Amino acid sequence: MVRTERIRVQTAGFADIVDITREVAEAVQCAGLRSGIVTVFVAGSTAGVTTVEYEDGLVRDLQEAFERMAPSGRPYHHDRRWGDGNGFSHVRASLLGPSLTVPVEDGRLMLGTWQQIVLVDFDNRSRRRELVIQLMGE
Amino acid sequence: MVRTERIRVQTAGFADIVDITREVAEAVQCAGLRSGIVTVFVAGSTAGVTTVEYEDGLVRDLQEAFERMAPSGRPYHHDRRWGDGNGFSHVRASLLGPSLTVPVEDGRLMLGTWQQIVLVDFDNRSRRRELVIQLMGE
Amino acid sequence: MVRTERIRVQTAGFADIVDITREVAEAVQCAGLRSGIVTVFVAGSTAGVTTVEYEDGLVRDLQEAFERMAPSGRPYHHDRRWGDGNGFSHVRASLLGPSLTVPVEDGRLMLGTWQQIVLVDFDNRSRRRELVIQLMGE
Repeated sequence: MVRTERIRVQTAGFADIVDITREVAEAVQCAGLRSGIVTVFVAGSTAGVTTVEYEDGLVRDLQEAFERMAPSGRPYHHDRRWGDGNGFSHVRASLLGPSLTVPVEDGRLMLGTWQQIVLVDFDNRSRRRELVIQLMGE
Repeated sequence: MVRTERIRVQTAGFADIVDITREVAEAVQCAGLRSGIVTVFVAGSTAGVTTVEYEDGLVRDLQEAFERMAPSGRPYHHDRRWGDGNGFSHVRASLLGPSLTVPVEDGRLMLGTWQQIVLVDFDNRSRRRELVIQLMGE
Repeated sequence: MVRTERIRVQTAGFADIVDITREVAEAVQCAGLRSGIVTVFVAGSTAGVTTVEYEDGLVRDLQEAFERMAPSGRPYHHDRRWGDGNGFSHVRASLLGPSLTVPVEDGRLMLGTWQQIVLVDFDNRSRRRELVIQLMGE
């Protein structure tokens, strides 16, 4: 079985971290996937996907780590050339990566108890994002 | 074919890097997977998975890189709120990511000669980890 | 359907970033994959795979970010022991990761308009790389 779903997420940008675990779990349930993998993929070059214990403190800690990794105040060649002002967003997105693979067993995402799937929107403005949730298995 | 296996790994925590290539290769062999993908996934929010040439020097180099990326001596909002003292572990785990996909051909992992699959346990204590090895293909 | 293809890429090393989107799209077309996933995997421990808006400015921005993450001028234990001089290459490769999963729908990679698949070769010399493009689905 291959099933391709999409979910829409409104973000505030600037490393906004959005918990999408429930939406992914619902896609698994709706498709009736018992055993296999879920690919979570964000189309676009200024956002990424990972997992985190979703609580306010860590959300801020992670945002500060992104700021150290690719500071928003640095000059970027991308901005000098295109004037978008979101060079830092692109760099962070490439480092984090756009895809995540989560195994499913007995119809359930095999996540830890304190492990949530998150979209990180690095862009320098609010965005309406479309995520691909692709289910493969039986 | 979809097959979900688990392996247990004892770690020392503090960015302990454990070579799990043999265990993953054995899972491929036991399942009789000839062609397809292996998803290596660690449930939990303070560990990650990647590949590295597994030798003492690089193990230490990688540990030092994690220390620069999310220093253990910094204050973290997570620790202030929950007192776990492992804010740095969570941040590193989110940046590295919990999943790795390795293609299989003719029953063999398509790794380079000096490329091993490793679990990195970022937690601030010794842990007994359970990893998911999911095989999909023919 | 499982199909395993290989593509060869000549790189300059030193964080050379090569756009391989066309080659991956061609592999999808040749295999006749309509719906499923493509796993892009680089065998070897001094290269990685990600996505980026492929334009000169960002290519340089990303290279500078890798230089900050694991500076080429630092001493590495790997180099002290093995004399390869590419400790920084290994560390960067482990942090970026060797695999990327891209979903396919209606025979097309579900990438954003300004999102290209790239190989990053971190080694300290020119290399001829072999990438695995594995297609799974229907």
